[in-house]
Amino acid sequence: MPRRDTDQPGARVPRPPTIADVAAAAGVSRSAVSRSFTEGASAAPGTRAKVLAAAASLGYRPSAIARSLTTRRSHLVAVSTVRLENGFNASLLQALALGLDAIGLRTLLFPIAGTSADADPSLDEILRHRVDAVALLATRLSSRFSAQCASAGVPVVLINRTARDGATSSVTGDNVGGARRIAEFLVAGGHRRFAFLAGVEDSSNSRDRERGFADALREAGGPAPLRAAGRFDRVASSKAVRRMLAAPEPPDALFCANDHMALAAIDVARREFNLAVGHQISIVGFDDAPTAALSGIDLTSFSQPPEAMAGRAVAALAAVLADPARPAVHETVAGELVVRGSARLPAAGLATTTDGRRLWVGGAVSSFRAP
Amino acid sequence: MPRRDTDQPGARVPRPPTIADVAAAAGVSRSAVSRSFTEGASAAPGTRAKVLAAAASLGYRPSAIARSLTTRRSHLVAVSTVRLENGFNASLLQALALGLDAIGLRTLLFPIAGTSADADPSLDEILRHRVDAVALLATRLSSRFSAQCASAGVPVVLINRTARDGATSSVTGDNVGGARRIAEFLVAGGHRRFAFLAGVEDSSNSRDRERGFADALREAGGPAPLRAAGRFDRVASSKAVRRMLAAPEPPDALFCANDHMALAAIDVARREFNLAVGHQISIVGFDDAPTAALSGIDLTSFSQPPEAMAGRAVAALAAVLADPARPAVHETVAGELVVRGSARLPAAGLATTTDGRRLWVGGAVSSFRAP
Repeated sequence: MPRRDTDQPGARVPRPPTIADVAAAAGVSRSAVSRSFTEGASAAPGTRAKVLAAAASLGYRPSAIARSLTTRRSHLVAVSTVRLENGFNASLLQALALGLDAIGLRTLLFPIAGTSADADPSLDEILRHRVDAVALLATRLSSRFSAQCASAGVPVVLINRTARDGATSSVTGDNVGGARRIAEFLVAGGHRRFAFLAGVEDSSNSRDRERGFADALREAGGPAPLRAAGRFDRVASSKAVRRMLAAPEPPDALFCANDHMALAAIDVARREFNLAVGHQISIVGFDDAPTAALSGIDLTSFSQPPEAMAGRAVAALAAVLADPARPAVHETVAGELVVRGSARLPAAGLATTTDGRRLWVGGAVSSFRAP
Repeated sequence: MPRRDTDQPGARVPRPPTIADVAAAAGVSRSAVSRSFTEGASAAPGTRAKVLAAAASLGYRPSAIARSLTTRRSHLVAVSTVRLENGFNASLLQALALGLDAIGLRTLLFPIAGTSADADPSLDEILRHRVDAVALLATRLSSRFSAQCASAGVPVVLINRTARDGATSSVTGDNVGGARRIAEFLVAGGHRRFAFLAGVEDSSNSRDRERGFADALREAGGPAPLRAAGRFDRVASSKAVRRMLAAPEPPDALFCANDHMALAAIDVARREFNLAVGHQISIVGFDDAPTAALSGIDLTSFSQPPEAMAGRAVAALAAVLADPARPAVHETVAGELVVRGSARLPAAGLATTTDGRRLWVGGAVSSFRAP
């Protein structure tokens, strides 16, 4: 969403978005916007999804309309969260809560402490609070919980995760495509020994990113990457990277399955092995979390835009609430490989955006050259 | 709370905390713990507060007991949040949500987008969801909202903020004491030109930190600090610091009212003024957010422990729910000045903790020496 910061007295208060702004952003008529927010009114599912995504990203609040929309409902969405010390997860939660708020839904937080036994929100509680839907943010969906929600008639949307069976709607970044892009970038940069730092082992994100990375390396004629698991956790990541870098033939290119683990990797490389990150070792993350852009971090990372992901998830939730029989959807939000100082650059394939970011856009795929 | 990360299959699952662990941590008997979790049972308010704080920080879940505790209630606490891109706010929200969860209360999130008009959660909604209490995290309490909640009988606790009238319970870090310590540290380090980067102008935190900083500088015989406002926002902070550093006599010591603004200050000093932070300019923050410890940031900062603050807030909420007539309490959680590379060190007064952190513990107060 656009950043608005007008707490200071006297600061200019931006005009709140109107129905016309939403119509323009969604590329539909005003009456289509109005119909999209009126339960029972005819609106094509695709149109409604576009309108809700635009409304969420603009922060449009159809207050009275939204309130009357679903009077038989609790207006509550159970949202599970985990590891808010990971800045990307915090951004995603903020974008989701604001997006739900914009269409009159309220976030009921189920924080996950990290023990697998506690990973599912309590179904008892979900039923007691009569939540309209469940959104799982970066947490695993157990088949038991999925079946319980289905039999209770509570729709579930996964954000930044997918379920194995495909029966649950999901919104993710471009896990496979992004990881492939990273592999191609590192091959083009002339690296020799590749490594992958996995997240939690049963995370679909980590699995998909590992697959994309290993597939693209193989296709370029490169060696299979070394592998260790950092479990999306700082301490576990430090330990895994320490072991990798102490090996006789340490990697010169390390792809970490998210930025949070890449921060730990940078710390270990610098502080314990005295390596110049971006010169003696290249480290790449996934998320493009806010910390990645800081001067002392300067992390190359494949982006996942939290506002776009949250907007799609809000639209998916609204769609399934309007039509409970709607089949599951799986949405992939595109990202970009944002190039900074933590990884050696290829000679070609770079582009600078109008807002000053440098991207790697690739080109002809490079082949791995054996040392 | 202790970090537990056992998502990986086969990882050792730590034993969940027992009533005995809580009793030991709180320094009370097991039966006192049990009484503290039983509504109507006799437990001294001080004891109950200690027990609930210990339970929250250990992640103790008295499931069945907690559920039966307050059957006439909704078990919902409305929690307002703002700026989760600030890692300290995200940590505080996580600790609070886990602490509430541990005593059977559920977090209903009211995200604040940043426009002052939207700063109060909607009282309509709070009443409609029949929330038991309201916790405002790092957001301003308007006197209108405060009066509305009082007349509706909904208790309010402020976290990381205080209200002007003192009638609303609050939990804060040691704003005045921490800022005084920072001033003494910078004077002892031989700095000459001091500056303060304020947050949102009507924030009690920013006001209290400014007061402590200016008072201690004056008492040491130093000059009044320069001043600019960064409004707790990255873009506004960058602009304010850019202007300060471009002045004919730029500061050599900059205290930012929180770490989030200090990150922006470090970026501007390095990237736009090519300054060696910690040598040519000293930059100090407040929060000791997780980012402060990263190798490329290495920010000296006065700590606010989120788990301890959340634990006290949960105890305050539980106490007021048990006894609505309880007078407002104002708690200050102690912190430490954690010394890293972003500020020049004084010759004396440093100490190293058993976990390897370096603190400035001061000693004889230094006097400012004019250049």
